[in-house]
Amino acid sequence: MSQIISTVMQQAQEAFEHYRQVSGKNRAIFLETIAEEIEGLKDSLVAIAHQETNLPLPRLLGEIGRTTGQLRMFARLIAEGSWVEACIDTANPDRVPPKPDTRKMLVPIGPVAIFGASNFPFAFSTAGGDTASALAAGVSVVIKAHPAHPETSALMFSAMEKAIARCQMHPFTIQHLNDASNETGKALVMHPLTTAVGFTGSQAGGKALKAYADQREVPIPVFAEMSSINPVVLFPESLNQTNTTLAKTLAGSISLGMGQFCTKPGLLLAIDSPALSTFSETLEHELTQVALHPMLHTGIAKAFDKARYTITSQAGVASEASLAVVEDLEKPTPSLAKVSAKDFIENPLLHEEAFGPFALLVICQDVQELSQALKALGGQLTTTLMATEQDVENYPEILSLQCSLAGRVILNAAPTGVEVAASMVHGGAYPSTFDARYTSVGTSAIKRWVRPICLQGFKDWMLPEELKDGNPLKIWRLVNDTFTNETI
Amino acid sequence: MSQIISTVMQQAQEAFEHYRQVSGKNRAIFLETIAEEIEGLKDSLVAIAHQETNLPLPRLLGEIGRTTGQLRMFARLIAEGSWVEACIDTANPDRVPPKPDTRKMLVPIGPVAIFGASNFPFAFSTAGGDTASALAAGVSVVIKAHPAHPETSALMFSAMEKAIARCQMHPFTIQHLNDASNETGKALVMHPLTTAVGFTGSQAGGKALKAYADQREVPIPVFAEMSSINPVVLFPESLNQTNTTLAKTLAGSISLGMGQFCTKPGLLLAIDSPALSTFSETLEHELTQVALHPMLHTGIAKAFDKARYTITSQAGVASEASLAVVEDLEKPTPSLAKVSAKDFIENPLLHEEAFGPFALLVICQDVQELSQALKALGGQLTTTLMATEQDVENYPEILSLQCSLAGRVILNAAPTGVEVAASMVHGGAYPSTFDARYTSVGTSAIKRWVRPICLQGFKDWMLPEELKDGNPLKIWRLVNDTFTNETI
Repeated sequence: MSQIISTVMQQAQEAFEHYRQVSGKNRAIFLETIAEEIEGLKDSLVAIAHQETNLPLPRLLGEIGRTTGQLRMFARLIAEGSWVEACIDTANPDRVPPKPDTRKMLVPIGPVAIFGASNFPFAFSTAGGDTASALAAGVSVVIKAHPAHPETSALMFSAMEKAIARCQMHPFTIQHLNDASNETGKALVMHPLTTAVGFTGSQAGGKALKAYADQREVPIPVFAEMSSINPVVLFPESLNQTNTTLAKTLAGSISLGMGQFCTKPGLLLAIDSPALSTFSETLEHELTQVALHPMLHTGIAKAFDKARYTITSQAGVASEASLAVVEDLEKPTPSLAKVSAKDFIENPLLHEEAFGPFALLVICQDVQELSQALKALGGQLTTTLMATEQDVENYPEILSLQCSLAGRVILNAAPTGVEVAASMVHGGAYPSTFDARYTSVGTSAIKRWVRPICLQGFKDWMLPEELKDGNPLKIWRLVNDTFTNETI
Repeated sequence: MSQIISTVMQQAQEAFEHYRQVSGKNRAIFLETIAEEIEGLKDSLVAIAHQETNLPLPRLLGEIGRTTGQLRMFARLIAEGSWVEACIDTANPDRVPPKPDTRKMLVPIGPVAIFGASNFPFAFSTAGGDTASALAAGVSVVIKAHPAHPETSALMFSAMEKAIARCQMHPFTIQHLNDASNETGKALVMHPLTTAVGFTGSQAGGKALKAYADQREVPIPVFAEMSSINPVVLFPESLNQTNTTLAKTLAGSISLGMGQFCTKPGLLLAIDSPALSTFSETLEHELTQVALHPMLHTGIAKAFDKARYTITSQAGVASEASLAVVEDLEKPTPSLAKVSAKDFIENPLLHEEAFGPFALLVICQDVQELSQALKALGGQLTTTLMATEQDVENYPEILSLQCSLAGRVILNAAPTGVEVAASMVHGGAYPSTFDARYTSVGTSAIKRWVRPICLQGFKDWMLPEELKDGNPLKIWRLVNDTFTNETI
């Protein structure tokens, strides 16, 4: 295996030497062409992904749109060009000592390895956000197909191969490994020419890749979007005023796509009250009304069953649904369990993710207990606050705590549904990722694959377009500490 | 020890909860006040640092200016405010599904630990660039004093304590540990409340801190600026045209501050020619003319002697100066050694840094050999090209290679002298640092201590100033994908 990977990475390096010199405008055309080719294969992609993942056809069709939308978003970003953070300080020969001319911009880091997710066979897999952002940045990409949808991945790669040919890119700009073995993953992460890793999946998977990376002589970043229980705080006035709506919204969010979203609200926290009892009854009822689909694959169904059982079998946890009937393992009934804040805070097993249609309601005696429960948690992708304006005014410390906890803080909406936009953060402190400074969704995801370089004393003709006096790309730059898109 | 560190880090966390809520404008005043207090103690600081580091008084006086200059640069940056990369995508309720309002900005990451450098007792130590950028970012700082200048560090901390009192900051916003033990460093890096580490020093020191960090349950970034041999390529026409000037420039750069700069040019690469012979003779002569000063401390002098001996005793390495006379260990004579590219490429021991006044000249047969020698190197802080415009046109592949190698590429100037500016990159691939994506000099150094957060669906009154519709700070923001400093 390591011989194959060695060849693959040599090829990736060779392609990188070419691809990093392709202009932003031409890389943009390449990304748009990939999007076109994906659209050309849309029906086949949806059909094969439906077979491999059990995901419903409309959802898969929507995900194709998200995937091509992401590619086009990055195409716009790099065609415009300001994302490179060009920064120029011009010379001042009269200063003592003379001030040199220094100019900085972001450049691609080197070949990267991408590991796709099982729960988004298009948008977070082969040609998904990691690949799109990496290609936008100007790095060559080696994709390891997810073993749960190998045919989908191969077909998606064929779309990218067509785009490579049409745009006359180096043939190894994107490579695809359809090999389910852990050895392939290990060899990819450990190869000296690999400069970064992108991964979306389980905590166990992410930790394994990180452990390989930690064995390297030369450290590299591993961007792993792993696990999150996405705590939702339900504030008193909000429970009083929007009780039924709230229960319906959360039932939908907990069970959406059979709960197989990294932003699924897996934890609800509220202060005990009659309104909370009404709410939880309604929520439990709503969860039983959900139309069931099979989960992505047997492995995920078993893992969910086990994780949910671990939670519901802990001391102090009450759950009607989970153990009541022998249910279809592949189509588990969405369910809710309840626990006191005291029991929750003391038991770290209750802070773990159960990836599927399940949530744990933590009942707190007062706001202090709620605050302690939040403090007991690790880093999260999201946290939500269901609150009236009066609630927010009454409990400012809770919102502040939530801002410490997660990459995204949501007011009065379900955390599922991650907007693909410049202002999105899909990331957070460990264990949701290894590095809270990055996002894997939105235009800033490109920042994972670049490094800054400073060019000092260069003649104008030697400089890349982004840094020339004439600003031929008309991008926004910081020139002598002032933002401008003018020439110098 | 770990009990003391536990208390210190609890205090740092407590201070962080306050300090992160201090506005940019007030943090700016705090940084300016620190600069003022340092200026008030200038004479005492210079005197005590001279005793502890052997550095000449004028150099130390200059370094005070650099230190206060950095503090004021960060003060200007945060008083202006655009550095937070505010980014707003407004809601669109008519879209299907409705598009939410999402707003992103950078926020401080948490308490950080700073380890100062011995070679810059002011500018890269106690109140140096790491501390200044961290305080600018809004994080609380725990400083471990460098054991080679404990009194200087304590006096510098007293200036910061005065500023804390004057600005009514939380008393533990900055804490100072004057304890030379490795256990203190280990406990600091491993404490759960520590969120990042800044370090400037040896490769051994940096690797030790990284190894502690790797043992943590929750990973944190270790920014270590460690070692670099700063290869300088001398191109043929340049050697022909500016031979003597070039030799004088490089002799000055190699021996500046007794070679105790991380950007000291430790490696010269050139194609064999009569002009090269003349150049190396002149350079060797110039190196003998340098006024000698004692090195920073006995440990550094011994380490330099050992590292230089390791290089000069390798097969194929010719050196007149190094073994000729029994010299003063504390005041080593600057020297040059020579080796063929073939021997250089094959021997990794020749790629290591000797931190002191020494350089190795690699004599290449042709440009291919020069290219191979560059490819044999690890990541560097800087690389320099001494070349005419014709040279650059003749050998474009060398410049391209150099851009792959280092964080800063310099044309026709000495690499020593790191401009403190927005466009500076003082960083590079391993082993010069652990992470080529960051710089420890210039305004971007602040990016090491922050993470992005996305606030979704917030009411205007709940948003931080940076993200409010009215843009009260008048900062530059990306609003619906357009740069603007206007209101919404």
